[in-house]
Amino acid sequence: MFKVDLNCDLGESFGVYTLGTDEELVGYITSANVACGYHAADPCVMSKTVSICKKANIAVGGHPGFPDLLGFGRRNMDVTPSEMKAYVQYQTGAILAFCMSYGIKLQHIKPHGAMYNMAAKDIELARAICTGIKEIDPDIILLGLSGSCMLTQASELGLRVAKEVFADRGYEDDGSLVKRGKAGALITDDEKVILRVIRMIKEKKVTTVNGKDINIEADSICVHGDGAHALDFVKKINASLKKSNISLAPLSEIAH
Amino acid sequence: MFKVDLNCDLGESFGVYTLGTDEELVGYITSANVACGYHAADPCVMSKTVSICKKANIAVGGHPGFPDLLGFGRRNMDVTPSEMKAYVQYQTGAILAFCMSYGIKLQHIKPHGAMYNMAAKDIELARAICTGIKEIDPDIILLGLSGSCMLTQASELGLRVAKEVFADRGYEDDGSLVKRGKAGALITDDEKVILRVIRMIKEKKVTTVNGKDINIEADSICVHGDGAHALDFVKKINASLKKSNISLAPLSEIAH
Amino acid sequence: MFKVDLNCDLGESFGVYTLGTDEELVGYITSANVACGYHAADPCVMSKTVSICKKANIAVGGHPGFPDLLGFGRRNMDVTPSEMKAYVQYQTGAILAFCMSYGIKLQHIKPHGAMYNMAAKDIELARAICTGIKEIDPDIILLGLSGSCMLTQASELGLRVAKEVFADRGYEDDGSLVKRGKAGALITDDEKVILRVIRMIKEKKVTTVNGKDINIEADSICVHGDGAHALDFVKKINASLKKSNISLAPLSEIAH
Amino acid sequence: MFKVDLNCDLGESFGVYTLGTDEELVGYITSANVACGYHAADPCVMSKTVSICKKANIAVGGHPGFPDLLGFGRRNMDVTPSEMKAYVQYQTGAILAFCMSYGIKLQHIKPHGAMYNMAAKDIELARAICTGIKEIDPDIILLGLSGSCMLTQASELGLRVAKEVFADRGYEDDGSLVKRGKAGALITDDEKVILRVIRMIKEKKVTTVNGKDINIEADSICVHGDGAHALDFVKKINASLKKSNISLAPLSEIAH
Repeated sequence: MFKVDLNCDLGESFGVYTLGTDEELVGYITSANVACGYHAADPCVMSKTVSICKKANIAVGGHPGFPDLLGFGRRNMDVTPSEMKAYVQYQTGAILAFCMSYGIKLQHIKPHGAMYNMAAKDIELARAICTGIKEIDPDIILLGLSGSCMLTQASELGLRVAKEVFADRGYEDDGSLVKRGKAGALITDDEKVILRVIRMIKEKKVTTVNGKDINIEADSICVHGDGAHALDFVKKINASLKKSNISLAPLSEIAH
Repeated sequence: MFKVDLNCDLGESFGVYTLGTDEELVGYITSANVACGYHAADPCVMSKTVSICKKANIAVGGHPGFPDLLGFGRRNMDVTPSEMKAYVQYQTGAILAFCMSYGIKLQHIKPHGAMYNMAAKDIELARAICTGIKEIDPDIILLGLSGSCMLTQASELGLRVAKEVFADRGYEDDGSLVKRGKAGALITDDEKVILRVIRMIKEKKVTTVNGKDINIEADSICVHGDGAHALDFVKKINASLKKSNISLAPLSEIAH
Repeated sequence: MFKVDLNCDLGESFGVYTLGTDEELVGYITSANVACGYHAADPCVMSKTVSICKKANIAVGGHPGFPDLLGFGRRNMDVTPSEMKAYVQYQTGAILAFCMSYGIKLQHIKPHGAMYNMAAKDIELARAICTGIKEIDPDIILLGLSGSCMLTQASELGLRVAKEVFADRGYEDDGSLVKRGKAGALITDDEKVILRVIRMIKEKKVTTVNGKDINIEADSICVHGDGAHALDFVKKINASLKKSNISLAPLSEIAH
Repeated sequence: MFKVDLNCDLGESFGVYTLGTDEELVGYITSANVACGYHAADPCVMSKTVSICKKANIAVGGHPGFPDLLGFGRRNMDVTPSEMKAYVQYQTGAILAFCMSYGIKLQHIKPHGAMYNMAAKDIELARAICTGIKEIDPDIILLGLSGSCMLTQASELGLRVAKEVFADRGYEDDGSLVKRGKAGALITDDEKVILRVIRMIKEKKVTTVNGKDINIEADSICVHGDGAHALDFVKKINASLKKSNISLAPLSEIAH
């Protein structure tokens, strides 16, 4: 029996600014990555988002990012490992507080945007993030790019890890994502995306942008919550996975 | 036997900006109110401050403030109770994370500056703060102005409370502090300040700015960490209390 | 011949967050109040907004607010007159830079939200704002609430002023706006709103929430750019004014 | 007759946080780089700093930085040229407003920290900064690293430029600064520093960290305002230059 988690970034609104359709999305995913106030979200948004997740009975994770609201945490910042660790701990505590206040567990941490990408390749930054999480609670799962050094670091430190794949992003031969802007970075045909995801789960293979088959492991599939088409696609992938005898479950039932 | 806590605001540096002499002060106080990144401090400063407190074996509390770094959290902001609650929960989580990562307990929360003053008089804001703390961990002690409605709200909700007095601030007949800028707001003679504090503890009385004696209860004395003279005064009051057979103890041994 | 300005807040997006339909609205208004990065907007948004206004050939004003992005500048903050003056000067300079870079004139300043409301009633804050503007460029027009002390202060200091009325807000007998949340605060019937505006312009009268007729002067009508209905209403009021022989003109042709 | 400018970063305080000894330093320098609220400073600090410069009769420049108060603008951020241009324009406007309000000219712009270093090597970022300045006022002088591509871009665009050298920093053979942390990055012997500066001015030569003599042009010498020793050193270099028949003059009398 195949099992996979469907994760989505939630709680990205800020003050009067609204992003996403969180209240509808939660019906079709199993884990939420909740923004923690650095690249998006504010305390009121975080509280509301955790409450929405609780009602929908889906698992809550924290989604820490760089202190760059202006750039939505998508811009590389030249931080030191000790800054990285402190930023992750601060934001992990913030989301933990809202989980505690609603009486639910903080399931996982998934770094956001530039933080995620930098830590996928930089061992010291990856180790800083994982150490930061472990010091707070060694039961928190780290959700990171399948095949990345962040997962290796997390495992070495004794954290449980979950391997994330991207439904609609192209892969290079080395398992990294094709950079946004390059040809093949995004796959826009829903049917192709879904077949590809099912193959990743069942055969542990994906065809790269160069036409080569590589191995890939998928504990969790990242879907996007913004864009007019997003909700429709999430419904479709949710239904397709179930029809293919792949059951959906939160990371806590899947992580290694 | 008389017992009192000596509390001081710590960890108020930010980035390249340094405030206070935390590493020396911790030798003479029993509880620290650690800034949480809204009115002062950043994640690196918070981590370092908790580490300093742990080494000095003093208790750590959180010191949440308004999101107003520019005004150091000293300016009243017209927030709603639900904003207030969310701001306190966010910051409580942040300081909690650093406590967890150093393996120590978060002893108390003391709101900062304008947040402290507004909640001392506004029942709804006070209740929002106390509810926010209780939802996270009902064992956290609330440290607030002796005689204020914030303590009443905390007690009603079942939180342990600690009554704070100010060593060097004048009191009005109703037990509130004389506003800064008014005559009698600050008492600058160290000897007078110390005698007054000892009387508050032993006789539960203080003479107001109008010369009237009123009742006051003192679980904790607030001392200041900044200013050239601060460290000297903290040493002096620490020594004077001990000489007067008043033992110093963290809030956890004192709160009601 | 009657003449009035139609003003609208523009450029309120921030980073990835989008607000309003600026590119369509500019076709139906005569003056834009462009956010300056404190309560909304960022430098890229400001540059783009000024460019949109220039293309549409409408006048640009600055819309300074409190340093409270989280609260969209709508929350009262207890600032001193000298802080207020400095905040207005900083933001006026920022919008002026984008005007200079596009080779257009900065026509006016209209304080935003809580800053606008506080300065409508507090003489010292009003004077601080007006002095700040005058010191930068005495040709900048101040746009403020018709009948407010901010306009009186501006006139006394020698600034040109423009009196603003609100199309869809109820008025108290003393000429102030009915507080949001109170009955009568908002008038939702478009036809009524338009007739009321035309009466303000032609008869200089408005009926208050208590049914009393009071005098009012209208140099500029504030319309809102957000909300699904906003653009439709702006088109409607634009057409209705023209049909009633009221010509539309920017503040520079109207201010006193 | 030799002529040089002595520039120093001023106005780096923020809210309650104080940095530097601006009021004393202004007596010994000819140009100030005033922080603009992104990496340091706030509107009140900017206003006060410009006022101090005016009283001391020294020239005012703007010192724009990355939106990273937490990192004091010293961390590289992966910004696009159009973001860079907008950030520089925003901050140039802000400092311009305070200059206008005190009736003085904005003499120059010198990018700060990571912005300065990135633009010294990246042609597109350099061009974005220079275009941004030119669009606001083509009379503003660009102060940048002697030999850097930022100066070339500025000259190509028709801006006046001033070549900056660092009194106490080591140079690589290609004219770039030895990275902080590397051996030879800082020269700590005051006498050596001063002799080296005088040689740069009179002989247009400097000995690199590898012992090689390279050509260098010095329109302006950067001195630092923070650190216990800073003021003493500034006094010393000021006196030594005068004694060596090198007159001190603001950039406006020197730039090309």
